[in-house]
Amino acid sequence: MNRTRIRGRDRQPDSPLADKPFRPLVNPLRPVEMLTPEQLEQIHTASLHILENIGLDFLHEETLAIWQAAGAKVDWATQHAWLDRGLVLEAVAQAPAQFTLYARNPAHNLTIGGNHINFATVGAAPYYSDQERGRRPGTLADFQRMVKLAQLCGPIHIVEGLLVEPQDIPVVYRNLEKGITLFTLSDKVITTAAHGQEVATDYLNLAALVFGGLETIEQKPVILSNVNANSPLRFDERMLSALQVYIRHGQPVIITPFILAGAMSPITMAAAIAQQNAEALAGIALTQLINPGCPVVYGGFTTNVDMQSGSPAFGTPEGGMALLVGAQLARYYGLPYRGSGGLNNAKLPDAQAAYETQMSLWPAVLAQANVVFHSAGWLEAGLVCSLEKFILDVEGLAMMHHFLAGMEITPETLALDAIAEVGPGGHHFGTAHTLSRFREAFYRPIVSDRQNYEAWLEHGGLDAAARAHTIAHQLLNTYQSPSLDPSLAEALQDYVARRKGEMSGRVGE
Amino acid sequence: MNRTRIRGRDRQPDSPLADKPFRPLVNPLRPVEMLTPEQLEQIHTASLHILENIGLDFLHEETLAIWQAAGAKVDWATQHAWLDRGLVLEAVAQAPAQFTLYARNPAHNLTIGGNHINFATVGAAPYYSDQERGRRPGTLADFQRMVKLAQLCGPIHIVEGLLVEPQDIPVVYRNLEKGITLFTLSDKVITTAAHGQEVATDYLNLAALVFGGLETIEQKPVILSNVNANSPLRFDERMLSALQVYIRHGQPVIITPFILAGAMSPITMAAAIAQQNAEALAGIALTQLINPGCPVVYGGFTTNVDMQSGSPAFGTPEGGMALLVGAQLARYYGLPYRGSGGLNNAKLPDAQAAYETQMSLWPAVLAQANVVFHSAGWLEAGLVCSLEKFILDVEGLAMMHHFLAGMEITPETLALDAIAEVGPGGHHFGTAHTLSRFREAFYRPIVSDRQNYEAWLEHGGLDAAARAHTIAHQLLNTYQSPSLDPSLAEALQDYVARRKGEMSGRVGE
Repeated sequence: MNRTRIRGRDRQPDSPLADKPFRPLVNPLRPVEMLTPEQLEQIHTASLHILENIGLDFLHEETLAIWQAAGAKVDWATQHAWLDRGLVLEAVAQAPAQFTLYARNPAHNLTIGGNHINFATVGAAPYYSDQERGRRPGTLADFQRMVKLAQLCGPIHIVEGLLVEPQDIPVVYRNLEKGITLFTLSDKVITTAAHGQEVATDYLNLAALVFGGLETIEQKPVILSNVNANSPLRFDERMLSALQVYIRHGQPVIITPFILAGAMSPITMAAAIAQQNAEALAGIALTQLINPGCPVVYGGFTTNVDMQSGSPAFGTPEGGMALLVGAQLARYYGLPYRGSGGLNNAKLPDAQAAYETQMSLWPAVLAQANVVFHSAGWLEAGLVCSLEKFILDVEGLAMMHHFLAGMEITPETLALDAIAEVGPGGHHFGTAHTLSRFREAFYRPIVSDRQNYEAWLEHGGLDAAARAHTIAHQLLNTYQSPSLDPSLAEALQDYVARRKGEMSGRVGE
Repeated sequence: MNRTRIRGRDRQPDSPLADKPFRPLVNPLRPVEMLTPEQLEQIHTASLHILENIGLDFLHEETLAIWQAAGAKVDWATQHAWLDRGLVLEAVAQAPAQFTLYARNPAHNLTIGGNHINFATVGAAPYYSDQERGRRPGTLADFQRMVKLAQLCGPIHIVEGLLVEPQDIPVVYRNLEKGITLFTLSDKVITTAAHGQEVATDYLNLAALVFGGLETIEQKPVILSNVNANSPLRFDERMLSALQVYIRHGQPVIITPFILAGAMSPITMAAAIAQQNAEALAGIALTQLINPGCPVVYGGFTTNVDMQSGSPAFGTPEGGMALLVGAQLARYYGLPYRGSGGLNNAKLPDAQAAYETQMSLWPAVLAQANVVFHSAGWLEAGLVCSLEKFILDVEGLAMMHHFLAGMEITPETLALDAIAEVGPGGHHFGTAHTLSRFREAFYRPIVSDRQNYEAWLEHGGLDAAARAHTIAHQLLNTYQSPSLDPSLAEALQDYVARRKGEMSGRVGE
């Protein structure tokens, strides 16, 4: 009766995540380090050798000009540059160790650096899947649903703006649709695509509209973008031109070499990491030559190829090692670090999906990765954004939040009086100490079932994925748009409409 | 053709774990510590307060006599003793920090202590389940099958001798059947039950037969047993009388308070750990009063009650914290530590089973738990030994073995020549560096599927649990009994037959 009344038309239904609000996450544990200082120095030295003696391709004339002006040797015919260690390290040293990313809702602002950990959703999945309708190409409706879920889930800090590809929208319009969706359906920090100058400019303009102008966001960064190297040793025009737009206007990018050891680097993890480090340092130095002091993040996304099938392998021990060592390198240079937290090769949100996910989440947390991409929803080597996997992952992230909160040691929590009161062989269910604390005690699971076997059977005998499906829809039923000034909403719509008009001749692209 | 010939009658079929032989495991990472030294000292001090001022029940006259002789205050009427800190800490200080456990096959000997990690199977599950026949009371056939699997799986170091309860065998015969099964079907280190003097004596006698006499094993311990406190603050006659048998004859026990915070201790984790520590120190001190210098292990098995259902909750953030802090305390006292690695409340080997498992496995590994109980096969709060979960867990353990092996940093693995040879934009599939290493490179999964979606569908579209089922049977098909001197086998059979004869009047018990 009471329950029905509370859930009446004047009230939102209770959220299954009501006790898990958004909050910043810090890891108070000492970061886990896999290499000795001497081994780290060997990697560092190898990277400098690569930068100086092997060099990298930069398929973008403006970038080559920047390198040449800074004193690097450039071969314009092959679009190649060799980068002296002094040049690179001096530039890298100008990047800040920590910065704030501003969200539309100030309560959702994030600190990037130190021992702050920020979980981002899956990004860039071409397919979407749920248990109702299976695996299919992503749509705008799927994109919108996932943005809503990311907004609803407290343990998620960042909405990765590539999330799932809205394949029902013409390619040229997609980033505009993503942009307006992100800025209207969520008020958390978002990431945006670094897919060329035009796309980056559109995201920048949308952000400027939302946050009070370009000058404001140049002082207070509001969007984060991921710039991949085309490993080995190459940055392409698309990424570099977007990088220039964002960095010139003070918006941080993550420089992320995407390396599958055995394919895009030598097969040994030491070489993969040395190459990752060379590529990351090159990209980070470039940002500082363009806009000294602009925030930038050292990104690592190194794992291995499966040598039996040739497929990329995710959630592997090698990927876990690479994550730890990458973070150690970022700390060595005084830079924030990006890792990944939900990687796996599973086709279903099953045990494989879960244990491979944990083989990336734990290293990310132990490494103190400041931005953890793909923390929720990633399935099938990143090809699929899965509704159920998203909820299962949010459980994992919420558990990690609780775990890192640690243990409070005070006379009250040591409770020697309660121990004496109950004495040997008794139980503590009814003590005053228990009764005053039991409502808030312990992590409360979202998906995990703790009933006995018979009760579980009576409730349908469902596996975790099936329960996650139900919870996703319960959550979505509680969704409310975050408030947005109607004039701003209109300005965003006008911008998108105008740009679509300008692009309409390119719909076939 | 070739494959068929190799698999002919003269050869065992290839094992799916052929590349994952038994090997000792060390964790080269610095142990993760959750408490500051000051916080640890607070726990220590609280525990001493409990021992001195609250005291414990010891429901066993011989034990009370030992305490009294050592100078403790004993109340014989309530079977209660108060233990001064000096008495306890002096006794605890006599236990060794590290020892060797001897296996029937010397290649399977184990080091218990330091940064050595030893994974044990699930123990004491009343039910067994597999995908073919579902969940049912355990049988001797199930017990035998699981011992074989444990013997076959390289990443498993210890066969937990309680494994799954053979409910088709009369209670009084069960430990005899378990004992002869363990010593004949496996040659790895085993644990045995601490269920009273008679049971402990039988295991000791069987071990003496196998290893060349009681005097030999008194010098070189061969069996490990788990002694639980009946928390709060009580040890019962069954456990204490078994402890005496084992410890007098130099066989190590693990002193493990089993605490569900909120039921068997106050609801706060600080109190749960302080009480755990008091109970563990009491049991450990007792072993040293009985046989100074006898190896003993500090055991932790503290987690929380689910306050919504009253059920024990496993694979929880609180359990993970307790594991880390327990290991920190064991190191503080210079003792080996036992944790648990595969805990969960799932009813099926699904995503919940996997992510909860990882929430106990990672803390166990990071804490450098020297003995990790329940690392493979545990399902449903420990009520079920699951065939499929066992194989899924072995994958997790094998991944952890590989992860902890770390990264080799040498000029050869840094491979600067290969990086230069391929240059920007190329690929490394065909280099000499890759070709000479690809067979041994990277962790090769047991269960994890890395095919693309279409190939996975063609192969049946199976989830990880279904694939694990197939792999379990492929493995079992490769089983061969480890060699055992026929006269020894006969002596074991004679012992069991004689003891069964002596017990035959008690079959109804």
